Amino acid sequence: MNIGYADVDLEREKRTGVPEIIYGEGKNAAEIEGIIKILQDAGQSPVMVTRLSDEKQRLLSKRFGKEFKYFPDAMIALIGEMKEVDGDGTILVMTGGTSDIPVAEEAALTAEILGNRVKRVYDVGVAGIHRLLKHQEDIDEARVIIAVAGMEGALASVVAGLSKAPVIAVPTSVGYGASFGGISALLSMLNSCASGVSVVNIDNGFGAGFQASLINHSL
Amino acid sequence: MNIGYADVDLEREKRTGVPEIIYGEGKNAAEIEGIIKILQDAGQSPVMVTRLSDEKQRLLSKRFGKEFKYFPDAMIALIGEMKEVDGDGTILVMTGGTSDIPVAEEAALTAEILGNRVKRVYDVGVAGIHRLLKHQEDIDEARVIIAVAGMEGALASVVAGLSKAPVIAVPTSVGYGASFGGISALLSMLNSCASGVSVVNIDNGFGAGFQASLINHSL
Amino acid sequence: MNIGYADVDLEREKRTGVPEIIYGEGKNAAEIEGIIKILQDAGQSPVMVTRLSDEKQRLLSKRFGKEFKYFPDAMIALIGEMKEVDGDGTILVMTGGTSDIPVAEEAALTAEILGNRVKRVYDVGVAGIHRLLKHQEDIDEARVIIAVAGMEGALASVVAGLSKAPVIAVPTSVGYGASFGGISALLSMLNSCASGVSVVNIDNGFGAGFQASLINHSL
Amino acid sequence: MNIGYADVDLEREKRTGVPEIIYGEGKNAAEIEGIIKILQDAGQSPVMVTRLSDEKQRLLSKRFGKEFKYFPDAMIALIGEMKEVDGDGTILVMTGGTSDIPVAEEAALTAEILGNRVKRVYDVGVAGIHRLLKHQEDIDEARVIIAVAGMEGALASVVAGLSKAPVIAVPTSVGYGASFGGISALLSMLNSCASGVSVVNIDNGFGAGFQASLINHSL
Amino acid sequence: MNIGYADVDLEREKRTGVPEIIYGEGKNAAEIEGIIKILQDAGQSPVMVTRLSDEKQRLLSKRFGKEFKYFPDAMIALIGEMKEVDGDGTILVMTGGTSDIPVAEEAALTAEILGNRVKRVYDVGVAGIHRLLKHQEDIDEARVIIAVAGMEGALASVVAGLSKAPVIAVPTSVGYGASFGGISALLSMLNSCASGVSVVNIDNGFGAGFQASLINHSL
Amino acid sequence: MNIGYADVDLEREKRTGVPEIIYGEGKNAAEIEGIIKILQDAGQSPVMVTRLSDEKQRLLSKRFGKEFKYFPDAMIALIGEMKEVDGDGTILVMTGGTSDIPVAEEAALTAEILGNRVKRVYDVGVAGIHRLLKHQEDIDEARVIIAVAGMEGALASVVAGLSKAPVIAVPTSVGYGASFGGISALLSMLNSCASGVSVVNIDNGFGAGFQASLINHSL
Amino acid sequence: MNIGYADVDLEREKRTGVPEIIYGEGKNAAEIEGIIKILQDAGQSPVMVTRLSDEKQRLLSKRFGKEFKYFPDAMIALIGEMKEVDGDGTILVMTGGTSDIPVAEEAALTAEILGNRVKRVYDVGVAGIHRLLKHQEDIDEARVIIAVAGMEGALASVVAGLSKAPVIAVPTSVGYGASFGGISALLSMLNSCASGVSVVNIDNGFGAGFQASLINHSL
Amino acid sequence: MNIGYADVDLEREKRTGVPEIIYGEGKNAAEIEGIIKILQDAGQSPVMVTRLSDEKQRLLSKRFGKEFKYFPDAMIALIGEMKEVDGDGTILVMTGGTSDIPVAEEAALTAEILGNRVKRVYDVGVAGIHRLLKHQEDIDEARVIIAVAGMEGALASVVAGLSKAPVIAVPTSVGYGASFGGISALLSMLNSCASGVSVVNIDNGFGAGFQASLINHSL
Repeated sequence: MNIGYADVDLEREKRTGVPEIIYGEGKNAAEIEGIIKILQDAGQSPVMVTRLSDEKQRLLSKRFGKEFKYFPDAMIALIGEMKEVDGDGTILVMTGGTSDIPVAEEAALTAEILGNRVKRVYDVGVAGIHRLLKHQEDIDEARVIIAVAGMEGALASVVAGLSKAPVIAVPTSVGYGASFGGISALLSMLNSCASGVSVVNIDNGFGAGFQASLINHSL
Repeated sequence: MNIGYADVDLEREKRTGVPEIIYGEGKNAAEIEGIIKILQDAGQSPVMVTRLSDEKQRLLSKRFGKEFKYFPDAMIALIGEMKEVDGDGTILVMTGGTSDIPVAEEAALTAEILGNRVKRVYDVGVAGIHRLLKHQEDIDEARVIIAVAGMEGALASVVAGLSKAPVIAVPTSVGYGASFGGISALLSMLNSCASGVSVVNIDNGFGAGFQASLINHSL
Repeated sequence: MNIGYADVDLEREKRTGVPEIIYGEGKNAAEIEGIIKILQDAGQSPVMVTRLSDEKQRLLSKRFGKEFKYFPDAMIALIGEMKEVDGDGTILVMTGGTSDIPVAEEAALTAEILGNRVKRVYDVGVAGIHRLLKHQEDIDEARVIIAVAGMEGALASVVAGLSKAPVIAVPTSVGYGASFGGISALLSMLNSCASGVSVVNIDNGFGAGFQASLINHSL
Repeated sequence: MNIGYADVDLEREKRTGVPEIIYGEGKNAAEIEGIIKILQDAGQSPVMVTRLSDEKQRLLSKRFGKEFKYFPDAMIALIGEMKEVDGDGTILVMTGGTSDIPVAEEAALTAEILGNRVKRVYDVGVAGIHRLLKHQEDIDEARVIIAVAGMEGALASVVAGLSKAPVIAVPTSVGYGASFGGISALLSMLNSCASGVSVVNIDNGFGAGFQASLINHSL
Repeated sequence: MNIGYADVDLEREKRTGVPEIIYGEGKNAAEIEGIIKILQDAGQSPVMVTRLSDEKQRLLSKRFGKEFKYFPDAMIALIGEMKEVDGDGTILVMTGGTSDIPVAEEAALTAEILGNRVKRVYDVGVAGIHRLLKHQEDIDEARVIIAVAGMEGALASVVAGLSKAPVIAVPTSVGYGASFGGISALLSMLNSCASGVSVVNIDNGFGAGFQASLINHSL
Repeated sequence: MNIGYADVDLEREKRTGVPEIIYGEGKNAAEIEGIIKILQDAGQSPVMVTRLSDEKQRLLSKRFGKEFKYFPDAMIALIGEMKEVDGDGTILVMTGGTSDIPVAEEAALTAEILGNRVKRVYDVGVAGIHRLLKHQEDIDEARVIIAVAGMEGALASVVAGLSKAPVIAVPTSVGYGASFGGISALLSMLNSCASGVSVVNIDNGFGAGFQASLINHSL
Repeated sequence: MNIGYADVDLEREKRTGVPEIIYGEGKNAAEIEGIIKILQDAGQSPVMVTRLSDEKQRLLSKRFGKEFKYFPDAMIALIGEMKEVDGDGTILVMTGGTSDIPVAEEAALTAEILGNRVKRVYDVGVAGIHRLLKHQEDIDEARVIIAVAGMEGALASVVAGLSKAPVIAVPTSVGYGASFGGISALLSMLNSCASGVSVVNIDNGFGAGFQASLINHSL
Repeated sequence: MNIGYADVDLEREKRTGVPEIIYGEGKNAAEIEGIIKILQDAGQSPVMVTRLSDEKQRLLSKRFGKEFKYFPDAMIALIGEMKEVDGDGTILVMTGGTSDIPVAEEAALTAEILGNRVKRVYDVGVAGIHRLLKHQEDIDEARVIIAVAGMEGALASVVAGLSKAPVIAVPTSVGYGASFGGISALLSMLNSCASGVSVVNIDNGFGAGFQASLINHSL
C-alpha cells in the first residue's frame, strides 16, 4: 500500500511467513506512526519497530499508550501482545564481552517476539576460555546459536567447534584502532576455521535473531 | 591423534554430529593419504576431501582404487559410500550466472554427502528477474536456500524477499574491476535489505552446504 | 569573472548548454549571495543553488525575497522562475527505501529545474520485488531512469533488466556496518550484471539529475 | 530457455530493446557455441560475444566459418551481419593514452554493432591539454561521449567541461603502484568536478558502449 | 632543549637552514607559549605556529601582544617581523575551487614567512579549462607551482603539462561520498600522467609551502 | 563469577600471573563499581581500571574515597596501593612527539602498576635524529623498550637498530590526512626493516605496558 | 663495509647483541655469496640466510660445501656450526593448522640458531579447543610463546588467556576469499581481547623467532 | 602529430623545457620504434625510453644499432648522445636497501640524461642509522635528494631532518605481507614528521629523477 514516503508490504506474511517489521532509523516518528497504523488496519498484531531511538519512542508511546512497550537495551518497540512460543527448540545467544550486550539483546528480543524460546549467556569471551566451557550443556541443547562479539571475534569459531547447531555470527563495532568499527571481527568470522558458521552485518542483531527464528521454525 | 603435521580430531563426530572433513588445499597428496587412513582406521566412513586439485586426486585415486570417487566441478573426493538421505527437507541451490556453478556444486555436493536432498536452479540472476520468478514453487518448498552469486550479488536479497526459508548467501569471486575478487558481492550480501540472509566467505561453497545441512537436520 | 574567492564561469551556458549552478556546501551565505548577483547581472535566470543548508537559506531568503524558493527535502534553492519543460520524454526517479528520498529529491528537482518532466516512484526495493514489478508501465515509458538505493543497491540491476532506457544509478549512504557509508551500494552498482547502468558518486542526486537531463535533451 | 549450465533469455530484445549478448569470459568454447546456436535458432542475428580470448575464437571460427568475424583489439566476435546505423547522432570515443585503446575499442565496436555511428579520438590525455582542445568540433557534434582513461582519469572532467553531451567515463586498469588496478581512475571519475559525468566499472568498455547506444536511440 | 612534554630542536636552523616551526594541533596554549619562549630565548625571530585554532590564538594574543599576528584563513600565527624576500623567483599557488582556499593560504603564507614572493590564482579547476589557460603567463614565470585541489584533483596534471616548473600537488579533503576525505585526489595526483609532479599529505599546505621554499632558495 | 552483565574472571591471577584488569570504555560507572567490588571481595588489591573518562572517575572517586587514585594523562584509576617493584630491569618508554604522550603514559603507568621500574624519554622523533642518539645509554640499559609514535612511525625501526632489547611498537592515531587514524604508523611498524620489533593495536598503550611487564618478569 | 650493492653492518653484534643476518629474497646467489664472505672474513660464524629459495641454495651449497646446511621447510641456510643453547627458558611455537607450519618452522629454526631451546606444538587451532587444552603444561613452562595462525587467527587470544608468558602472534597468509592474504588474521591478532599479545608482519616467522630470542636472553 | 595509436607531442620541449619521453610499458616494439622515428624526424636527440623490457630492447637494438644504448638496471634506453651536464648542483640518490636499487637507478639515470650530476649512496636504511650518518657531507652538498625505500620507508624522514635540500621520496614495492606492494612505504612518506618531503608514486623512479632535474635547473 503506497503512502508516498513508503510502499508498505501487506503481503509479506503470506509470502515469507513473517509479518512486515519497521526499521526505525532514518524515519521520523510521524512516518513510523503512519506505517504502524496501516499495518494495524490490515490486521497485523503485534507490530514491531527496530532501531528506535529513545526520543522517538517517547513520542510514539504517547500516541499508542499501554499497548506500546519499549525495550531500551535492544532499542525495539512492540505494539500489541507478544506471540506465543511456537519455535522448535531453544536459541542460545552468547556474547564475548559486556559491551556486546545491546546487539545481543536486539537479537534475543527479535527472536522472542517471533515466537522463540531464548537463553542468554553473556561475557564469555575466549581470553578466559574456561568461562565458555562451563556452558557446554547450553551449547548442546541449542537448536541455533547466535555468537555476538567485537574485537577479534573469535567466539564464533570456538563455539562452532563445540556444537552440533548452526552458528550465526554477529560482529559488533566494539573496539578501537585496528578494529575499524567491526571490520576486524567481521573478517574473523567470515574466515572461521570451524565449519557451520555464517555471518550477518556488523551490529545486525535483528538479522541474526530473524534468521535464527527461520531456522527454528520447521515448514 | 597427533601425527606431526596434523592433529586429527577423532572426537569431532561425537562433539558436533559431523565427521572430520579434510581440507585439501595446502596439504600434499601424501599428507592427505595419511589423514584419510587415520580416519578410516578410526572407523569413519565415508571420508570427504574438499578443494582437491585434479593432480592430487589422480595420485590418491591410484592408492584407494574403486572406493575413491572424484567430482571435478566441485573439486571434492569421497572415499566410501555416500550417506543415505536423512535430512528433513530439500536444500535449494541457486546461482546468478554460469560462472558461479563450481562454487554452487561444492555447496550442493557437500550437502548431499552430509545426507540432504538437493535441488539445483542455475543462471537465474536478477538482470532477468522473470527467469527467477518462474521458480517460485521451488523456493516455497525449500527448507534452506543457498544463493550463490558474484558481481553485485543481488540474488540473495531478491530470493529472501520471496521465501519463508533461511537464505545462506555465498559471494563468488566472479567479476572484474571493481568486483575486487568478490568483495563487492560480499558487501552486497551483508547489506541485504531483505531479512533472513546470512553470509559465508567468498567462494565458500563447502561452508554453505555444511551449514545448510545443520539447519536441515533437527536435533 | 574573478572575484577573489571565485572565478565565475559566465561562458558555461554557451559552452555546455547548461547555465552555471552554485554548489552551496563549503561557501558561506555572503559568498553565495555574491555569486548569485554576478550571475543575475550577466542575465542568467533562474539561478540554482544545491546543498544549501537550512541556516544559509534563511539568510539568503531575506536578501532575495519572493523570487527565492527553497526545497527542503532536496536542499536546493531557486532564484527566479522555473524553466518550461522542453525535454524529450519523462525521467523516472525510483528509490529502494524511504531513507533514500532526500537524494532522490535532489535528482528529481534538478531535472525539473533543467526543463524535464519527472515521475517519482519511491520505496520499491528488491526485497519485495512485486512492489517494483507493478511499475512496469512507468519503466516502459521512461526516456531515462534514475535508480537511487543504499544498502545492497540491487535496484539498479533489476530495473535495468526490465527497461529499454539508460539507467543512472545513485548509491546512497543509507545503511550501517559493512555498508561503509555507501561503498557497498556503489560497488554493487558498478558491478551490475545488467547492461545499461552507469553510476554517479555516493549521494550525488544532483549529478544524476543533470546527466539525465542531458540525455533527455537531443542536440 | 534452460540448458543446464545456462538459462538463455530469449525475451530480452522484446523487454529491453537489445538482443541477448554473450559474455565470453568464464565460459568454454563449447558452452559459447551452444548458446550461439540457441540464439540463432530463436532467430537472433547477428549474435555478439564479448571478452572472447584468441584461443576460444579460433575454435569457434572453425565451427561457424565465414559468418564469424573476430575483432582482436576489442576481443569481440560477431556472428552474422552488422546492423545498419539507426542511432540519432554520433558517439565520440576518446582515450587518455595509447594503452587505453583496447578498452576503447570494446566500447566503440559495441556501439557500432548496436547500430551507432562512432568517431574515435585516441591519446589525447590532459598532460598535453592542447592535443585535446584541437578536437572541440568533434566534442560539439557528439550526442554522447565515452571518455576512457587510466592513471589519474582526468580526461572525463575536462571533456565534460567542454561539452553539451553526456559523458560516460570508463576507468582503465592502466598504471602501476598507487593506481591500484584502476581504482585511482575510478575514484577520480566518480568525484569529477564537472557535471554530466557518469561512470561504469573498470575496463568495462562494453557497458559504456551499450549505455551510449541506449542514449543515442530515442524511444 | 628538553622541557618534559617537548624536546625543542634549537639546532634545526644550523642543520637544515630553516628555523623550528611549531605545529599547534594537539598542544594546548600553555605548551605552545612555553615553546615560543624557549625559541625566543634562543634568539629565533620570528617564531611561526601552524594549525592554531581561533580559541588558542586568542589566549596567545593576550600574552604576546602586538608582536603576535594571526592569519585566520591559514590558521597561522607569527610572533615577530616577517622575513625579507630572499627567494630566487615566484611561487605560484593555484586552487581548483573556492573550498580549497584555506589549504592554499596555509601554503602561500608559509612560503611568504620563509622569504618567498608568492602569487595566488584561485578557483581555476579543470571543469572550466579556459579559466586555467588564461593564466599561462603566471605559469611560465613561476619557479615552483603549488597545485591545491580536492575532488578528482586533476589540476596538478593539467598544470604540469603546461609548465617548466616543478609542481607540488596538495590534495584536499574537499568533497563527499567516494572522495573519502581526500583519498581520491591523493591517488589522482600520485598517478598523474604528467611528469614533474610530487605530492604531499592531504590538506598539508604547510608542507607544500615549505618544500616550495627549499626549491626556491639555491644553496 | 557471573553478575549478568559480566562474568568476572577471578582465576586469572592464578592462571596468567596477572590479576583481572577492568577495561572502562563501554561500561557505565555503576557497572565498573560492581566489578571493582567483586574483585575486592575476592581479595584482589590493588584494582586497576583503564580507559576511564574524567566524568566516570568523578563518580567512582566519590564511592571509593581516598583509596581511589586517578591519573588523567593515562586515563587510568587505581584502587588500593601500588605494587612494589619486582621486575628484573627497566622498561624504557619513548615517544616520537608531544601528542603521543597520553598513549605513552598509559603504557608507562600500566607497567609501573604491574611492578616495573619505568624510564620516560619523550619527543625524540626521527626528524631530529640527534635528539634520539643522545639517549643511547638509556637504550643500552633497558630490558624492554616501548616505542610510541604516530605519523610515519619510524621511531621503532631506528631504536631497534640501536638496541639489544626487544622493542614493542605502539602506533598512535596522531596525524591527519593519509595517516588514516594510525594505519600509516601501524603499517610502518609491521614492516620495520629492523629485527626485534613487535606491534600492538593503535593507541594500545595498556597492551604494550602489559606485555613489557611479562617480558620483564622471569618465570 | 660498502660493496656497492650492499653496506654490510659489521658492528651489529656489538650494538644489538645479534650478528648480521642475510635476508635472501631480492638478492641473487652471487650477491648473497659476496655478503657471506665479508661476514666470514670479519669473523662472524655461523652466518644465517633467510627466505632462501631452493634454486639459490643449490648454487650456494656448491660454493660452501659441507659447512653449508639448508632447512627446506623454513627456507633458511646456516653456514657454520649452530650456537650452543644459552637462552633462559623454552620458546613454545604453536600453529593453528597444518598449512601454517612453514612459517612456524622459520620462527622455530631462527630461535634455535640464536641459541634457544624450542618446543613445537602444531595443528591445535581453536575449532577443536580440546586439542589445545591438552597442552596446558607446555604453555605453563614456556618463557615465550609464538602463536602462528591464518584464517581468523584466534589462536593467539586463546593461548594468551591460558598463559603467564608473553605471546608473539604471527598471522599467516593461509586462507582464501575474505582472508585477504593474511589481513584478517593480522587484524584479529591486533584486536586480541586477551592482554599480553604483540604482533609481527604477515608470514614473518623470522621476526617472531628473533624477538622471542631477545626476550629469552636476559641482559 | 597523430599516428592513430599515439598523438606525439612535438611541442613539449618548447612548452615545458623537457623533450617528449617515451613510456615503454604497454606499447609494443613496433609502436615504440614508430614514435622514436617521429621524434628523430622532428629533430629531437637524444630520445629516451623508460620501462623497456629486455625483450623489446633487443628488437629495438637491432633497428637502431650503435646509437641505441640500454641500461638494464634502470630499464631505460637512450637513442643518441647523452646531454652535457647543465644542472646547478648535485642530485643525491639514496636507498634503504639493496632491493631498492633498480628504482633508484631509474631515478639516477633519468636525472643524468636530463643533464644533472648525480651521486649514489645505496643500502643505508634506518635500522643501522650510523651507516646513514657517515654520509652527512653528501647530504650537505646536495641541491636535491631522492630517497628511495620500501618496507617502512623511514629513510625520507630521517634524511629530511639532516638536510637543507628538498627531499623527493620514492616508495618501492619491496617487502611482503602488510607492506601491500608499497602502500606502507607510501603512507609513511606522506606522513613524514620531517618538513621538506614530497612523494611520487610507488616505484616511480623516473618521476623523481624528472622532478629533481626541474628543481636543479633554474629558469
